[in-house]
Amino acid sequence: MKQFTSVKDIDNVGDLVREALQIKQNPYAYESLGKRRTLGLVFMNPSLRTRLSTQKAAQNLGMNVMTVNADKDSWALEFQDGAVMNTTTVEHIRDAAPVLGNYCDIIGVRCFPGLLSKEVDTSEHIMHQFIKWTKKPYISLESATLHPLQSLADAVTMVEHSRVKRPKVVLTWAPHIKSIPHAVANSFAEWAVAQEVEFVITHPEGYELDPQFTQGATIEYNQQKALEGADFVYVKNWSSFADYGKLLCHDQNWMLTLRHMEATNQARVMHCLPVRRNVELSDEILDSPHSLVQAQAENRVFAAQAVLKRMLENL
Amino acid sequence: MKQFTSVKDIDNVGDLVREALQIKQNPYAYESLGKRRTLGLVFMNPSLRTRLSTQKAAQNLGMNVMTVNADKDSWALEFQDGAVMNTTTVEHIRDAAPVLGNYCDIIGVRCFPGLLSKEVDTSEHIMHQFIKWTKKPYISLESATLHPLQSLADAVTMVEHSRVKRPKVVLTWAPHIKSIPHAVANSFAEWAVAQEVEFVITHPEGYELDPQFTQGATIEYNQQKALEGADFVYVKNWSSFADYGKLLCHDQNWMLTLRHMEATNQARVMHCLPVRRNVELSDEILDSPHSLVQAQAENRVFAAQAVLKRMLENL
Amino acid sequence: MKQFTSVKDIDNVGDLVREALQIKQNPYAYESLGKRRTLGLVFMNPSLRTRLSTQKAAQNLGMNVMTVNADKDSWALEFQDGAVMNTTTVEHIRDAAPVLGNYCDIIGVRCFPGLLSKEVDTSEHIMHQFIKWTKKPYISLESATLHPLQSLADAVTMVEHSRVKRPKVVLTWAPHIKSIPHAVANSFAEWAVAQEVEFVITHPEGYELDPQFTQGATIEYNQQKALEGADFVYVKNWSSFADYGKLLCHDQNWMLTLRHMEATNQARVMHCLPVRRNVELSDEILDSPHSLVQAQAENRVFAAQAVLKRMLENL
Repeated sequence: MKQFTSVKDIDNVGDLVREALQIKQNPYAYESLGKRRTLGLVFMNPSLRTRLSTQKAAQNLGMNVMTVNADKDSWALEFQDGAVMNTTTVEHIRDAAPVLGNYCDIIGVRCFPGLLSKEVDTSEHIMHQFIKWTKKPYISLESATLHPLQSLADAVTMVEHSRVKRPKVVLTWAPHIKSIPHAVANSFAEWAVAQEVEFVITHPEGYELDPQFTQGATIEYNQQKALEGADFVYVKNWSSFADYGKLLCHDQNWMLTLRHMEATNQARVMHCLPVRRNVELSDEILDSPHSLVQAQAENRVFAAQAVLKRMLENL
Repeated sequence: MKQFTSVKDIDNVGDLVREALQIKQNPYAYESLGKRRTLGLVFMNPSLRTRLSTQKAAQNLGMNVMTVNADKDSWALEFQDGAVMNTTTVEHIRDAAPVLGNYCDIIGVRCFPGLLSKEVDTSEHIMHQFIKWTKKPYISLESATLHPLQSLADAVTMVEHSRVKRPKVVLTWAPHIKSIPHAVANSFAEWAVAQEVEFVITHPEGYELDPQFTQGATIEYNQQKALEGADFVYVKNWSSFADYGKLLCHDQNWMLTLRHMEATNQARVMHCLPVRRNVELSDEILDSPHSLVQAQAENRVFAAQAVLKRMLENL
Repeated sequence: MKQFTSVKDIDNVGDLVREALQIKQNPYAYESLGKRRTLGLVFMNPSLRTRLSTQKAAQNLGMNVMTVNADKDSWALEFQDGAVMNTTTVEHIRDAAPVLGNYCDIIGVRCFPGLLSKEVDTSEHIMHQFIKWTKKPYISLESATLHPLQSLADAVTMVEHSRVKRPKVVLTWAPHIKSIPHAVANSFAEWAVAQEVEFVITHPEGYELDPQFTQGATIEYNQQKALEGADFVYVKNWSSFADYGKLLCHDQNWMLTLRHMEATNQARVMHCLPVRRNVELSDEILDSPHSLVQAQAENRVFAAQAVLKRMLENL
C-alpha cells in the first residue's frame, strides 16, 4: 500500500477489516517488522485519539515515531506554488516535505479544512502537496474531506458488533455550536457504501454531503423514518456543504436521545469523538449500553496497525 | 499498587524508600519488566523535572511513553457531569479518559488547582475523574493538593543524607510574588508525619495548611525558634488556605539566608524546584553545600521507578 | 569530544567529514553504542530539521531522546546571576541545567540570539550557562552566533558534490523581510576557512560579519564578481552586525536567480532551510538541478550521528 487517504486506496475492505481483527488478537505478532523504520507524524491541528493510537500502532510494530506539531514546534508552512514569501509563512511545503520524506519511511499528516473555500478544501491541496513532495507512503490522519483511519476502525467495530448479515446503518446529522468539517461524515459514507450494509443518511435539508462520497446511499430527511429498524446509528455534526461551512439548523430535536432509539432495532450508537455531550448526543445514550464509542476508539490502534503493516511489508 | 496519589496509598514508607535506593544502585535491573507496556503522561500544566524524570524512569524499565500536553496537543476538557457542552470545552473527561485507559497500561496526570475555590480544589475533582474513567493504575504527577512523587524523592534524599536516627525536619514557609498551590507543602507534611522524624512546620499566621495533611506536626509561628537544631530545612511558598489562594505576608525576613542557618544543626536545605532565587531562597544557600536541591531532583527518577515497578509487577 | 559548539572544537574537519560519510554508508553500524544513554534536546526556538535529524541520529545509535520545548512545556528560564526573581522568570538556569545534566548523558540546546544587544549575543551567555551547569557533553543545535551541525552537514555535502580538488565557494547575502541571526553565515564561514577551498563572501556594504568568524576569507562587495567561477554558492540572509540586528538593504537584485548563475562554474547552490522562496532565493534555482538544499538536509542526520558517536565513545 502506497497511500491510505480514502476507501479508494483499498482493494477489498473486508480483507483489511479481517487483518485488523487478526492484529487485535495478537498485537505483537509483527513487532520486528518496523525495526529501523521511522514514522513521521505531522499535526497541523489538535489530536488525541489519532495521535496516540497511531503512535501505539507504530510502537507495536517496532517502529520509531517522530511527531511534529506544525506551526508550534517548527515553521509556518506555505502551500502556494510560486509564492513570493514576504509575509508570514517561513517555509514552503516544497522544501519542508522532502526533508520529512528524507528522515521518515512513512508519513502521516493531519490537515483540517479551512471551511472558507469549498474549492480549496475539496482540492485537498495540502494533502496532495505532502504526498507529492515527501515521496513516501502516506497515511491521512484526517484531511480536509476524509478520515479513513476512523472509518476503518468504525468498519472493524461494526463487524465485531453486528447481529445480522446485512445490518441497517444510519448516519444522522446532529446539532453543534460551531462550523465543523465534513471529513468524518464523508468518510463514513464512502466506506459504508463499500460494505455489505443498508445505508441511509439523514440530515436537515441543506446539509447534503458532497455527492462524490455519498453515491449509493439513501438520503432521508425525516430522521425518525430513517432510524426505523436501524442496527447502527452513527451520530455526527457537519456544517453545510452547499452553503459552504455555514450553520443552517439549530433544532435540538436532531440530538439523539433514548426516545429516538425506540424505532430502531436496539441499535448501537457510534461517534468518532470528541463529542459535545448534550449538544450532539445525550448523556443517556453515551452512558448506556447502546454506546460503542469506546470500542471505536480502541479499534483505532488496530486500524492504524493494519495500514502500517501493509505499508511496511511494501517498503 | 493500584494508585499513587498520597502517602495513604503506601503500606510502608520505609520499604518503598529502600526499594528506590536499591533501584538507584542498579537502575537497569528491571529493564524488561515494562516491555510492551505503555505509560501515558497527561500534563495540564508545565513540567520539567516530573516530565523528564518519569519518562526516564519508564524507559529504564523498558516501557514506552506517550505524552499529552492537554489543551495544547489535544482538546479542551470538560469535567462537569451532565454539562451541556455548548461553550468552550470540546471533550468530556468521561469520553477522553477511557480512551487513554484503553491505549495505556499506567496513567500519570498533572492537574494543578485553580486556587479560586477551596471546595473544588480540595475535592480533587479532576484527579478522581481521571482515576474513575481511565480504570488503570494512576500516578499523580502533582494534583490540586498533593505531589507524592516529589515527597517520595524527598524521603529518599533525607535517608541518604541523615546523620542521626531521628532527624529534626522543619518545613518553612517562604515569600513569593504569586499565588502558589499547597500541594508540595501538604505532601511533604503528610509524608514527614509518616516517617521517623521530629517534624515542625513554621509559617506566618494565616498560612496554616489544611489540617488533614499536617495532623501530628508541630506548628511554630516563630521561624527562628522552629529552626533551632534542625537537621533538614524544607523551604516552600504556599498561598493561604484559610483565606483561600490569597497572599497575606510579604515579609522578606522569611526568605532563608545563611543567617537563618546559624541556629540549625548545620542543616541541609531542600526545595522541590523551580525556586524563585533571592525571593524564596537566597543564592548563598542554594549555591552552598547546605543545598540538597539537586540530590532531590536526581532522586525523582528512582522514586518514579520504584512506583512504576510496583505497578508493573501488579498488572 | 566534550562539546560541539564551533569548528574550534574539532581537531580535523576532514576526519569528521569522512566519519559522517562512513556512517551514511552504514547508519546502523553503531546501533548499540547508545544503549541506556539519553540525549536531552532543549529548544528555546522553533526547529524542524535540527529537531528531527538529531532525534533520528540518536535513535540510529540506540539512544533514548527526551525533548523539552522550553517556555512551552516547562518553566520560563532566568539566566542572570544574582537575579532577584520577582518578575516573570520562574526557574534559574543554575537550577534547571543541573537537573537536565542529571537525567541526560548528552545535552543539545537551541538558543537563538535576541538581536537586541551585540554584546549579549556575542557572549553566548545562554549557551555557556547550559555548558557550565549541565556538566555534560554539549551539542549546539544553533546558538546565538554559530550553527555547527549545519556547517558539518554542509561540509559533507560539498565533499560529496565537489568536481574539483579545491572548489571556489561563495557565501552570498540574500534579501529578507525580517531581522535574521548571523549564526548560519558565521558558522559556514568559520568552517569554510578551515577547509581546502577558495572562499569568498559577498554582501552589501554594512553587512560585514563578525571578523572573528571570517578571518581568512575574501570579502567582495560586487556579487557578480564574487560569483565568477564559483563551484558552490551558499545563499543566506543575515541582519547587519555593525548596526546590530538592523536591515540596511532591500535590493532584490541580491536574490539569486538563474541569471546570476551564468558567471559561475555551473555552481551548485546551497541553503540551510527554511528559505523564503522568491525573496532569498528564486524558485527557478531551488527547483533546478543546481540546488543541493535537500542533500544538505539529508546529511544533517549523519553529521549529528558522527558527533553523537564521538561523544558516546568518550563517555
